[in-house]
Amino acid sequence: MRRFVADKTRNLVRRASTCSPTCPVSPRPHHPPSLLSQPTSPPFSSSSPSHPSSITSPLRFLTAAALHPLSFPASPNSMASNYSTTPVTLQSVNPKVLKCEYAVRGEIVTLAQKLEQDLKQNPDSHPFDEVLALCDHPAILDRSETQGLFSADAIERAFQILDQIPGRATGAYSHSQGIKGLRETIAAGIAERDGFPADPNDIFLTDGASPAVHMMMQLLIRSEKDGILCPIPQYPLYSASIALHGGTLVPYYLDEATGWGLEISELKKQLETAKSNGVCVRALVVINPGNPTGQVLAEDNQCEIVEFCKNEGLVLLADEVYQENIYVPDKQFHSFKKVSRSMGYGEKNISLVSFQSVSKGYYGECGKRGGYMEVTGFSPEIREQIYKVASVNLCSNISGQILASLVMNPPKVGDESYESYTGEKDGILSSLAKRAKTLEDALNSLEGVTCNRAEGAMYLFPRIDLPHKAIKAAEAAKTAPDAFYARRLLDATGVVVVPGSGFGQVPGTWHFRCTILPQEDKIPAIVSRLTEFHKKFMDEFRD
Amino acid sequence: MRRFVADKTRNLVRRASTCSPTCPVSPRPHHPPSLLSQPTSPPFSSSSPSHPSSITSPLRFLTAAALHPLSFPASPNSMASNYSTTPVTLQSVNPKVLKCEYAVRGEIVTLAQKLEQDLKQNPDSHPFDEVLALCDHPAILDRSETQGLFSADAIERAFQILDQIPGRATGAYSHSQGIKGLRETIAAGIAERDGFPADPNDIFLTDGASPAVHMMMQLLIRSEKDGILCPIPQYPLYSASIALHGGTLVPYYLDEATGWGLEISELKKQLETAKSNGVCVRALVVINPGNPTGQVLAEDNQCEIVEFCKNEGLVLLADEVYQENIYVPDKQFHSFKKVSRSMGYGEKNISLVSFQSVSKGYYGECGKRGGYMEVTGFSPEIREQIYKVASVNLCSNISGQILASLVMNPPKVGDESYESYTGEKDGILSSLAKRAKTLEDALNSLEGVTCNRAEGAMYLFPRIDLPHKAIKAAEAAKTAPDAFYARRLLDATGVVVVPGSGFGQVPGTWHFRCTILPQEDKIPAIVSRLTEFHKKFMDEFRD
Repeated sequence: MRRFVADKTRNLVRRASTCSPTCPVSPRPHHPPSLLSQPTSPPFSSSSPSHPSSITSPLRFLTAAALHPLSFPASPNSMASNYSTTPVTLQSVNPKVLKCEYAVRGEIVTLAQKLEQDLKQNPDSHPFDEVLALCDHPAILDRSETQGLFSADAIERAFQILDQIPGRATGAYSHSQGIKGLRETIAAGIAERDGFPADPNDIFLTDGASPAVHMMMQLLIRSEKDGILCPIPQYPLYSASIALHGGTLVPYYLDEATGWGLEISELKKQLETAKSNGVCVRALVVINPGNPTGQVLAEDNQCEIVEFCKNEGLVLLADEVYQENIYVPDKQFHSFKKVSRSMGYGEKNISLVSFQSVSKGYYGECGKRGGYMEVTGFSPEIREQIYKVASVNLCSNISGQILASLVMNPPKVGDESYESYTGEKDGILSSLAKRAKTLEDALNSLEGVTCNRAEGAMYLFPRIDLPHKAIKAAEAAKTAPDAFYARRLLDATGVVVVPGSGFGQVPGTWHFRCTILPQEDKIPAIVSRLTEFHKKFMDEFRD
Repeated sequence: MRRFVADKTRNLVRRASTCSPTCPVSPRPHHPPSLLSQPTSPPFSSSSPSHPSSITSPLRFLTAAALHPLSFPASPNSMASNYSTTPVTLQSVNPKVLKCEYAVRGEIVTLAQKLEQDLKQNPDSHPFDEVLALCDHPAILDRSETQGLFSADAIERAFQILDQIPGRATGAYSHSQGIKGLRETIAAGIAERDGFPADPNDIFLTDGASPAVHMMMQLLIRSEKDGILCPIPQYPLYSASIALHGGTLVPYYLDEATGWGLEISELKKQLETAKSNGVCVRALVVINPGNPTGQVLAEDNQCEIVEFCKNEGLVLLADEVYQENIYVPDKQFHSFKKVSRSMGYGEKNISLVSFQSVSKGYYGECGKRGGYMEVTGFSPEIREQIYKVASVNLCSNISGQILASLVMNPPKVGDESYESYTGEKDGILSSLAKRAKTLEDALNSLEGVTCNRAEGAMYLFPRIDLPHKAIKAAEAAKTAPDAFYARRLLDATGVVVVPGSGFGQVPGTWHFRCTILPQEDKIPAIVSRLTEFHKKFMDEFRD
């Protein structure tokens, strides 16, 4: 009774998936109370009547952003004094919390969040959505109407997944590492990807990759004397998590001149410097493909990194969430697990954690909060500690767990959904590649701007040589020069980018991160506005 | 086009919801590798062929449990030495992680998890599941087949919710506090519950209540010199979170003799003791209804607690996740927000955080990881810090967010689902009340056992006067006497309870926590097995 030949409903599904023209205006972006008083609001925010649908506005694009991310000026005393009798003040709050910064959320966070949804408008990933809906409400699985609404393989997959869930429902707690059957699916997907076995017991399913990163930081950081080697520029989750857990970020610089190359000599130098400062370095974070830098590591380079971690006794924390996002034919994704196993290194030789997420790739299901970490090369007693920390939050959400298993085991040849799935996937990835190239070329044509190619991930991180006068003006405005540029760009065009200072950069250089997510047909307008703004800016501040 | 008159499909839905007899055997419970070697496995684990469906086995019941929770003996050296070259050892792991304990997850965690699903087998909460499924796959919303599968109000609600989500999809990141429209719904639900206004900006949606508790601990705890007043017995999330964040748990004892009463004199005494030890007490945790103790606070008592927090400058952390679970006619739930507002205390007078979850109540949708905290009485600058910490994990999962809004705004009179919804809700809650009473009576009939009534929550926490010989035997077995009893109970009957030592108890007293979740028709068998075991145990160890 479980197999049906479903109607060919995909056209209808596809039709329904694109945002309809009657799609209502999203509500006014919410800010915490004190943010409402920010003097400058973006000119084309969703509440602007001239741009009823913020999502389709060509002017609001590029990347999730915050100017002066999360370092708001303290509220005026008059406001603070109203709360003078409350028990928690800036003086009595955990200083680790104060210290933590998070560049990709903050002042204009709602703007940023909507932009991320540009990706969501196209991809759809219908087989995934279908399976999730069926698992949420399994009562409809064997109803005849369901055959008209869902593809046969989605129905079959929902049956399979529900078979794996004790109680056949998504509403119960799972094992703290995630549902065993789903971890088996994921492990099989990893083994297929890498050509080396993977163990379901090594998989910890998490609400996105972020909690997994926090978990590892919690495990490793005992005090400010413990250091974590992090790339600069880096995704600010790492700096935020290290700050929250009270450790020391030990920076290593990626070499912009060689396409954001990761040099072992730089790792060694920074490790030695940290040691001489009394810092015990515990782990190395590598983001591959890079965020915000977009580079894809060469396999040889990865071998060197593995060797370095092995020799120095460092845990290798491999952020591999962009593993599906590669846009250049001369680069491929190789997981660090595959690389280390290819080198002959096993469980006992290298401590390696690989982070994966359902928020990236061609699927971009960030709101589902699905992800996992694969934990290898830790002793059983340490594994127990990781398991214990995982168990304190009971388990990750089951829909996210299911989605993680779908991402690692997508429709196969012969499945009814296969054709539409590959069509959508290839369409999204090739479109992202085109967008990356167009934006890269446009950025490189600007005066004083150089931009490495986006080999992977979803970002470009151009360098901008700002005129001396602009730097002075930024100083006068008490802001970083790249933040000054980004703010001017936002004010003039509605374009949102994240200043490089939120990610870290070689002192005296200035960058910004922009995503490659704007819809393809919006990019020409974006480029022309950016170009126009940039010319005016450079003219205004020309030395 | 949005409103349909749906077919009366509820009977079919209801039929499909109960676990079918062909429901497959759940896979063998997974343990981290080192746990597989535990010498004793539960006699009726799901892998036992004589009990093909672990969920329906009458022998596996009572509560989520761990004997010696998470305090496994260190692995033998021979095993550890294989990993001697790996960078993280018990000596170099974060000691806060080692210190953290979590009594309700651990050695026999899979057993425990399956038991929680007993609740899941009955409740269903169909209107909720329907809405979630429709939101996950909105492509089917305006298809005619959908009318046959979903109730009209579920379809309408899904439209309403999707209207509130920018991009009309559950796959995008939301605002870090959660989707504004859903927070508005929740705030309206709180206002209706309390009779006092609630502000959507005060709501932080989280992946269950646990991350919200961690967030507040992170905010408050600067070092081991910061203390948090916690009830003893307490739900071990609090002790675990305080340990992970490096603070000091300041215990206050609930008075078993007065039905787990919360005495202000005890709070004052413990506060003074902590102060004299140099501990700065930052907050008071109150769990109402109580976990594991099941008491419901009287309103007068709550007023005293508010007054105490206000006078002592403590943040009141109100765990109110069992607010729907009240089983006695003489008690009602009053939120601390309502109580403090009734006393005339507002934003500026009392710092109050209320935690709520979709995992409890009559819905029990724990796998969805939905929950929120309502944060009131903090200055704008501290609110920004809370917001920043929330933003480091980007946002909670959207399905959980939706579910939290549904729980705070369930079907209303006139909705198609209303009748079935109230029928199910009342049925579940009255059944839980009956189960609580039956188990309470049974426990009180046992020699040396006294059990306060379960006024609320989902637990009984009986006290057991163990014979001197049993205590000696436990000592010889290097285990706590209540853990010894619980282990014997498990071995003899398959019944799982959590020893009181995992929750804390007055030294020299012994308890265990059992849930009231076993299905009603299973309870007589449970009672008779428990009674039989207890008699034998007492005879064996009679002094």
